[in-house]
Amino acid sequence: MAEKAFQDYYPDLLSHCYGCGRLNEQGLQIKSYWDGDESVCIFQPRPEHTAVPGYVYGGLIASLIDCHSTGTAAAAAYLAEGRAMDTEPALRFLTASLHVDYLRPTPIDGPLEVRGRVQDIKGRKVVVMTTLLAKGEVCARGEVLAVQAPQSFLDQLAEEAETIR
Amino acid sequence: MAEKAFQDYYPDLLSHCYGCGRLNEQGLQIKSYWDGDESVCIFQPRPEHTAVPGYVYGGLIASLIDCHSTGTAAAAAYLAEGRAMDTEPALRFLTASLHVDYLRPTPIDGPLEVRGRVQDIKGRKVVVMTTLLAKGEVCARGEVLAVQAPQSFLDQLAEEAETIR
Repeated sequence: MAEKAFQDYYPDLLSHCYGCGRLNEQGLQIKSYWDGDESVCIFQPRPEHTAVPGYVYGGLIASLIDCHSTGTAAAAAYLAEGRAMDTEPALRFLTASLHVDYLRPTPIDGPLEVRGRVQDIKGRKVVVMTTLLAKGEVCARGEVLAVQAPQSFLDQLAEEAETIR
Repeated sequence: MAEKAFQDYYPDLLSHCYGCGRLNEQGLQIKSYWDGDESVCIFQPRPEHTAVPGYVYGGLIASLIDCHSTGTAAAAAYLAEGRAMDTEPALRFLTASLHVDYLRPTPIDGPLEVRGRVQDIKGRKVVVMTTLLAKGEVCARGEVLAVQAPQSFLDQLAEEAETIR
């Protein structure tokens, strides 16, 4: 796919996340895109992402919902500001709360589809509702409250990174 | 520590979980114990478990809370039945819902302490409330509704494992 994912626009300093950072070699490196009003992420679980044999680990499901939702929040915030994701300043969202309802065991032998929809966007807060599907069946539902990272926190990270270097 | 963890009592078939299975070599292999009325799990995050540099990935926090809570639910269910965890039948709990509030960024440069407390135990359902601390500060709070795995599901797993073998 030639289209860049939401996560491909994150600045380097904010691209080390285990779930969605393109610079985290051991991480999941999920990729999210718009699909009409919804955002979508396709992820193939690895054999070790097991809960019980044949089924996906709930912590992975929570992780996918988490990172896909914060990515969706960022993409929606750019849209709301009427600017592209490669323009400054960079908007990055942190998870304030995460809720997941596990509706049925999720089979591990195929790709998972995570679909997000912005339910509310107000000031620095975005609520994203997600569904996770396997083989076309909804296996989990998630709700994430994402909050835009304060500039002071981003400045602090940049300073710490500078010190380490 | 000579004491066996909750997870060390899980039957082999149910010990492949990425978060808590002792047979999952790539997994987190968390270990939970009673500490008075509470359960406790100490986990050292790996460098790749990053959210932003210096801080722990929220998906890992959700995973720790998830598996520590289902382990606590199982241990509490044995207690409620007045029998030891190495007696039959084995009790195994699945996550029906998971809620995590992220209260502050969680520093990655030290062990995390996850503490669980059974809030409610009724029939096959157990509600576990958890706190996750780093350097003595509460960084996240979790609530898990754990449900005892139905015997029919465990039988199905055993049958599938037999087929594969």
